[in-house]
Amino acid sequence: MGKRIHNFNAGPAALPLPVLEQMKEELLDFRGSGMSILEVSHRSPWFDQVINDAVERTKRLLGLGDDFQVLFIQGGASLQFCMLPMNLGLDGHPVDYINTGTWSTKAIKEATIQGKDVRVVASSEDQNFSSIPKGFQVDEDAAYLHFTSNNTIKGTQWPDFPESGQVPLACDMSSDIMSRPFDVTPFGLIYAGAQKNIGPAGTAMVIIRKDMLERVPENLPTMLKYTTYTEKNSMFNTPACFVIYTIDLVLKWLEETIGGLENMGRTNREKATLLYDAIDQSGFYRGTTSRESRSLMNVTFRLPSEDLESEFVAEALKQGLGGLKGHRSVGGCRASIYNATGLEAVEALVAFMAEFERKKG
Amino acid sequence: MGKRIHNFNAGPAALPLPVLEQMKEELLDFRGSGMSILEVSHRSPWFDQVINDAVERTKRLLGLGDDFQVLFIQGGASLQFCMLPMNLGLDGHPVDYINTGTWSTKAIKEATIQGKDVRVVASSEDQNFSSIPKGFQVDEDAAYLHFTSNNTIKGTQWPDFPESGQVPLACDMSSDIMSRPFDVTPFGLIYAGAQKNIGPAGTAMVIIRKDMLERVPENLPTMLKYTTYTEKNSMFNTPACFVIYTIDLVLKWLEETIGGLENMGRTNREKATLLYDAIDQSGFYRGTTSRESRSLMNVTFRLPSEDLESEFVAEALKQGLGGLKGHRSVGGCRASIYNATGLEAVEALVAFMAEFERKKG
Repeated sequence: MGKRIHNFNAGPAALPLPVLEQMKEELLDFRGSGMSILEVSHRSPWFDQVINDAVERTKRLLGLGDDFQVLFIQGGASLQFCMLPMNLGLDGHPVDYINTGTWSTKAIKEATIQGKDVRVVASSEDQNFSSIPKGFQVDEDAAYLHFTSNNTIKGTQWPDFPESGQVPLACDMSSDIMSRPFDVTPFGLIYAGAQKNIGPAGTAMVIIRKDMLERVPENLPTMLKYTTYTEKNSMFNTPACFVIYTIDLVLKWLEETIGGLENMGRTNREKATLLYDAIDQSGFYRGTTSRESRSLMNVTFRLPSEDLESEFVAEALKQGLGGLKGHRSVGGCRASIYNATGLEAVEALVAFMAEFERKKG
Repeated sequence: MGKRIHNFNAGPAALPLPVLEQMKEELLDFRGSGMSILEVSHRSPWFDQVINDAVERTKRLLGLGDDFQVLFIQGGASLQFCMLPMNLGLDGHPVDYINTGTWSTKAIKEATIQGKDVRVVASSEDQNFSSIPKGFQVDEDAAYLHFTSNNTIKGTQWPDFPESGQVPLACDMSSDIMSRPFDVTPFGLIYAGAQKNIGPAGTAMVIIRKDMLERVPENLPTMLKYTTYTEKNSMFNTPACFVIYTIDLVLKWLEETIGGLENMGRTNREKATLLYDAIDQSGFYRGTTSRESRSLMNVTFRLPSEDLESEFVAEALKQGLGGLKGHRSVGGCRASIYNATGLEAVEALVAFMAEFERKKG
């Protein structure tokens, strides 16, 4: 094996090394089955144990009561953009959205394609999405209020979640789920592509409050109805078994090695503070978002010129620090510091940044 | 590592051992990237190489010209059941279906939910789906003719594909794709859940003839339009990277180790003949389908009693022969002998069957 790098990819992203090591260890013979986890039937006790364990760990980690169900649905958050309005939009009621960037914009587009009465109740588009909007009114009549909890491209994050009174919150939590504790009570639906904080690409985790299921229209395509998944423990058809297996291992690591979301949240705050302090104390690096909206997951910054940015990214990779290029739509640099990217990786990055500034600043 | 069993699972199913060994070898450091394949960005040269290689190998193996595109879409064949009529149904034209069992029935149901004028032009339901229908008429006006090439549950398979004149064929080839050569010319769409012959669960391979794309309606949800995938090399959003990686390794094995579909087809025929001969020459085991419709992939059979069937399955597993229980909807026994289940596995099964008959017959 070659040397592993510090991985700052925005997603797919770093996985905990002990998870990868366990996968490697049991890849040819899954727990005495004589088969790889890639080869066992999804209708077997081996896989039942995996999916049920992943569900139970999710419920414990997030403090979900029996009024919530945890599902695994293929197609990523992008498929949820259309499943949400299809399933939980209510005839004669508006659906409310807050627009904080690319992913919210895509969610709004899919609700519009569904012919819903879409109201964008708040947006930071006029600030080029560099902050999280404040001071907005949610229609009490709305079927739900949708928002994106963390914005990977611009590097913003809701410090606290929006207030919506009796209107259920619906949230794309792809890039910060399981990164900190939060109160699930106001949420009707939470969905998250796995490939940032909880596993590899190939499944969304969907958490639905059971009263939402009464809204699901009868005549939807079977694979696009939430009830298809709630009624069959996500196994109406063959699920993405290997992805769910990896999620289970990541959640086990989060519970048993890290010690849960309080600890994870503390470490994540420590990592982000270290990096933002390095940026703020430098005249060379420059943050791109308003301070109170800064993401603890995706730290975006610029250098004095695009040439220096390219050089920074290339030189960092040579030193074992990968994935620092900003999203192709905005340029600049970005360090994604999800759960599995440890404090030692951030320390190495900060040291490299100081060194690079000393040489080039 | 424990002892690996001979795996006769119906899907997820056996993978070639050299594929699993390579995955294990490079799991912590994918080809010098310093990351696992589970951790690399889908927008990286590492993953580009993987997905492009999988597409090119598919085109070579199936002899696809540039009039076809190869896509990877999450949600399995079950999502294709609704995407097909949504995308390729034509207003004012019927859609024709042949019903050969559970999977065809599900495909028909989803076309009906889409409000299409569904015509079931042939069905073997009156024979309890124990054979493939003959002698039917396809409406020249039909948007397409859909059929299921192999039926995992009942153990039947089309020996030759249906004639449809100018009407494009649409086929669920989940359980026999890449198991034998065939002429792709009459097909407008082929789709296959990966988890039987070409990889693990979590993606369907979709092969579409480019002229079909003109039919795709503008106002569909983005993730349900074939054009979303054709325009972005299956990467509008993050695809199921690890599943595609595994598919690529399986196709490499099929091309370079097996030597292509002619060779694979010959071996598959040899495996099936060995097993059916053992059944036919016994008064103890009994086939469940008409001889001319027998599947080369899923060999279904009964024993004199259900008690003996349970005993057979349990005793086989003790001797390292797994996955022999029939589908829960029909009972009995089933040996799935996809590409990765080798001749030696079938020989071991046939020897076990003879031994079991000698003791219990």
